[in-house]
Amino acid sequence: MSAPANFIDFIDNNADKFIQRLADAVAIPSISGDASRRGDVVKMALFLDNQLKSYGVETKLVDLGEHTLEGQQLKLPPAILGKIGTDPKKKTVLIYGHFDVQPAELSDGWDTDPFTLTIDKATGRLIGRGSSDDKGPILGWVNILEAHKSLGLELPVNLKFCFEGMEESGSEGLDDLIESEVKKGKGGWFDGVDCVCISDNYWLNTRTPAITYGLRGLTYFKLNISGPGRDLHSGVFGRTVHEPMTDLVKLMSRLVDPDGKILIPGVDEMVDAPSEAERAIYDNLDYNIADIEESAGSATALSSDKATVLMGRMRYPSLSIHGIEGAFHGVGAKTVIPAHVGGKFSIRLVPPQTPENINPLVVSYLEAEFAKLNSKNKLDIECLHGGKPWVENFNHWNYEAAKKATEAVYKKTPDLTREGGSIPVTLTFAESLGVNVLLLPMGRGDDGAHSTNEKLDRSNFIEGTKLLGTYLYEVAAITSKA
Amino acid sequence: MSAPANFIDFIDNNADKFIQRLADAVAIPSISGDASRRGDVVKMALFLDNQLKSYGVETKLVDLGEHTLEGQQLKLPPAILGKIGTDPKKKTVLIYGHFDVQPAELSDGWDTDPFTLTIDKATGRLIGRGSSDDKGPILGWVNILEAHKSLGLELPVNLKFCFEGMEESGSEGLDDLIESEVKKGKGGWFDGVDCVCISDNYWLNTRTPAITYGLRGLTYFKLNISGPGRDLHSGVFGRTVHEPMTDLVKLMSRLVDPDGKILIPGVDEMVDAPSEAERAIYDNLDYNIADIEESAGSATALSSDKATVLMGRMRYPSLSIHGIEGAFHGVGAKTVIPAHVGGKFSIRLVPPQTPENINPLVVSYLEAEFAKLNSKNKLDIECLHGGKPWVENFNHWNYEAAKKATEAVYKKTPDLTREGGSIPVTLTFAESLGVNVLLLPMGRGDDGAHSTNEKLDRSNFIEGTKLLGTYLYEVAAITSKA
Ligand SMILES: [Zn+2]
Ligand SMILES: [Zn+2]
Ligand SMILES: [Zn+2]
Ligand SMILES: [Zn+2]
Repeated sequence: MSAPANFIDFIDNNADKFIQRLADAVAIPSISGDASRRGDVVKMALFLDNQLKSYGVETKLVDLGEHTLEGQQLKLPPAILGKIGTDPKKKTVLIYGHFDVQPAELSDGWDTDPFTLTIDKATGRLIGRGSSDDKGPILGWVNILEAHKSLGLELPVNLKFCFEGMEESGSEGLDDLIESEVKKGKGGWFDGVDCVCISDNYWLNTRTPAITYGLRGLTYFKLNISGPGRDLHSGVFGRTVHEPMTDLVKLMSRLVDPDGKILIPGVDEMVDAPSEAERAIYDNLDYNIADIEESAGSATALSSDKATVLMGRMRYPSLSIHGIEGAFHGVGAKTVIPAHVGGKFSIRLVPPQTPENINPLVVSYLEAEFAKLNSKNKLDIECLHGGKPWVENFNHWNYEAAKKATEAVYKKTPDLTREGGSIPVTLTFAESLGVNVLLLPMGRGDDGAHSTNEKLDRSNFIEGTKLLGTYLYEVAAITSKA
Repeated sequence: MSAPANFIDFIDNNADKFIQRLADAVAIPSISGDASRRGDVVKMALFLDNQLKSYGVETKLVDLGEHTLEGQQLKLPPAILGKIGTDPKKKTVLIYGHFDVQPAELSDGWDTDPFTLTIDKATGRLIGRGSSDDKGPILGWVNILEAHKSLGLELPVNLKFCFEGMEESGSEGLDDLIESEVKKGKGGWFDGVDCVCISDNYWLNTRTPAITYGLRGLTYFKLNISGPGRDLHSGVFGRTVHEPMTDLVKLMSRLVDPDGKILIPGVDEMVDAPSEAERAIYDNLDYNIADIEESAGSATALSSDKATVLMGRMRYPSLSIHGIEGAFHGVGAKTVIPAHVGGKFSIRLVPPQTPENINPLVVSYLEAEFAKLNSKNKLDIECLHGGKPWVENFNHWNYEAAKKATEAVYKKTPDLTREGGSIPVTLTFAESLGVNVLLLPMGRGDDGAHSTNEKLDRSNFIEGTKLLGTYLYEVAAITSKA
């Protein structure tokens, strides 16, 4: 049961209207990380709420309380909960998305005003902040609702929605909301949900649609080394006292090798080598070293073997050193011995790694390495934050439906991918609802989600709307057979 | 020939007047590094010029041209050249000092307004920016001139002066002035100078006067490592590309050990071990581990052997890592892979080390170590600046005179010290004039020259004035015997 032809036709015939709605949404600078834009995030919530209601969705704006930003006490933007359809014979699909965006200013290097959707006729690019992350995808769902309402078509599944306005700023308040609704049991908003679909990531490349079944977790450390009572002059104190920077670079040099191998005993070892079958997944992905190096902007991939590099991103942990707090960081040649330095690094985690089983390995290793230095300085290891990895069972009807929908719309087998980064709400849904969660991206790998000149290709917006709609029909088809 | 009794009495009897003059000087915030204070540096030059002229010194304000500061094109403050006495039978002593100061604001943590000289009656401290560095010492010379003029005493030597207003900001223009005067030969301002005396450093401790015969040189490096075309997200790129920070901390970890040993082959090795006699100098200095740790604010000295620690500061090279440009340095937990990072470190040099013989060792070692990393990133090594070390012959009548003067005024044998830092003009005078240069400090080791609550003890100002005056008499005495 593919989507009905009149649904597909409606999407094609109303493309310009959909693009105008995206332009209206992009015009609202709903930057969650900028206190002065908080009113715009609320405005965007009301815009979306209105759209949902006008196409028959029952909604509820949820007050998530307050938080502190830039020293100000601010009300959090409301989350939007929605539902349409209560047919007990149908599956219930929960849709997640976010209506806030990353900061953007023309002076950052944008070629056009970031909050005016610019349509590049030659390339088909729809350029503007939030076009791909995540206003395009959430309006994809709205497009589907409009199509069904206009055509008098019945939706193939019951839908529930959870849209938030704080995703780009740590999703504050969202976990609490989800958990309190789940606790309500029968009366809770998410009661009866059979699976989750999140459209908030990207294809690997610019050619092949993707379905994503894994995200890495994270544990972030700050290595504090304290020595002198104040910053010292290197002329007066050089070679008289233990210098915190000397100790810190020694410790940080023992974390990871240039080829990416993690030197903390037990961390890499916790992850099994891939089977032949799993390795074949990576060999078969439509992605190559040139794609990786183009997106990194340099010919510095860790290997010339594509599967090795892709597994490094998707199925192995990684350790990156981010920088140092408290050391000299300006231009010029200051001859300071910094008194207190905090080295920052983080480890991306994959199952079965969690902050709980990794952090003790990190701490005991670094304490032992520090002891070897025979330094009189003091080491204090802080874990700044962390989150578990998520890997979903892709042999599930939820993924089957997404695969069939992709083949129907794009005439291609999707890349089955894992992402190197994190979308924490994915794990919250998976763990608290206990249902299968699917990531079904709309945009391409070069959309530049958090960068300048963010874009969504017109074809990805329109075909992507068809994809999300077709996915709902495939869910209904597969599960009615089962 | 000690100084005449009426000179000593005059200094004691006019102490309050001298302190008022110091207060007047401190009240002029002559911060050379602050463009908005440039007028005050010029005001301070005119104040000093007036004092010198009123006590019989012939002076010349020298225009040093312009420079750029905080993006502004500014006139440099004038240097002051002075001379008094042309008796061919007398030695001619060149005096150097500086009338500019470091920045200071109450909000930096000062207990009192930094530009109001505050006299703490209980401790005898004269608290204010520039009290010790270097307005106290230059006014010491003015006090001596006033005493001689008031008493109708003939000066025991001819004096030349070179005072500058840019010492705290790299002494811009000074080397050119000195070299151009030296080039004039007979007609030059420094013609006929027999020795140089600079009072712009400190005793080792708070108890024992010091005479200083050495300064370390410096060579300052920036290790640039470039990888990706832009900063990357560690979720997306972790374990796919070579990360510049990984390479940089590896390289920086191979520079120096926590105990201060420099790992660059040939650097430490260039310096001979001390003879028994030289080691005895350090054993005999009135300074101990507790002094070092008190001034560092922590019990982190590299050794419990005092001579080892003092030699680390004075007669061995040292390598300090200052920080990193281009890495994440803010608070919080940013998951960035910085694309271009520049690690900063410097080596303090001692004879026979010079930037010329050390830099090739640094560059070839780091290039070889980088090659071992097998990284595809790029390394570029920059030397930001450098200067040669200076060590003077202390078996010279100039030092003999200073030692005798110290014994006469303080009834103590002075500590014979080398400084870990640099005063570049010292080397310029030594090399371009070819005469013996002496550092004869007025202040104590705890004066806090570049710190908050800078002070000069009243007794150091008054006895220090006697010391500088007596030194001139001892120069005359020793050289007339010879
Ligand atoms: Zn997003
Ligand atoms: Zn985003
Ligand atoms: Zn000074
Ligand atoms: Zn200074």
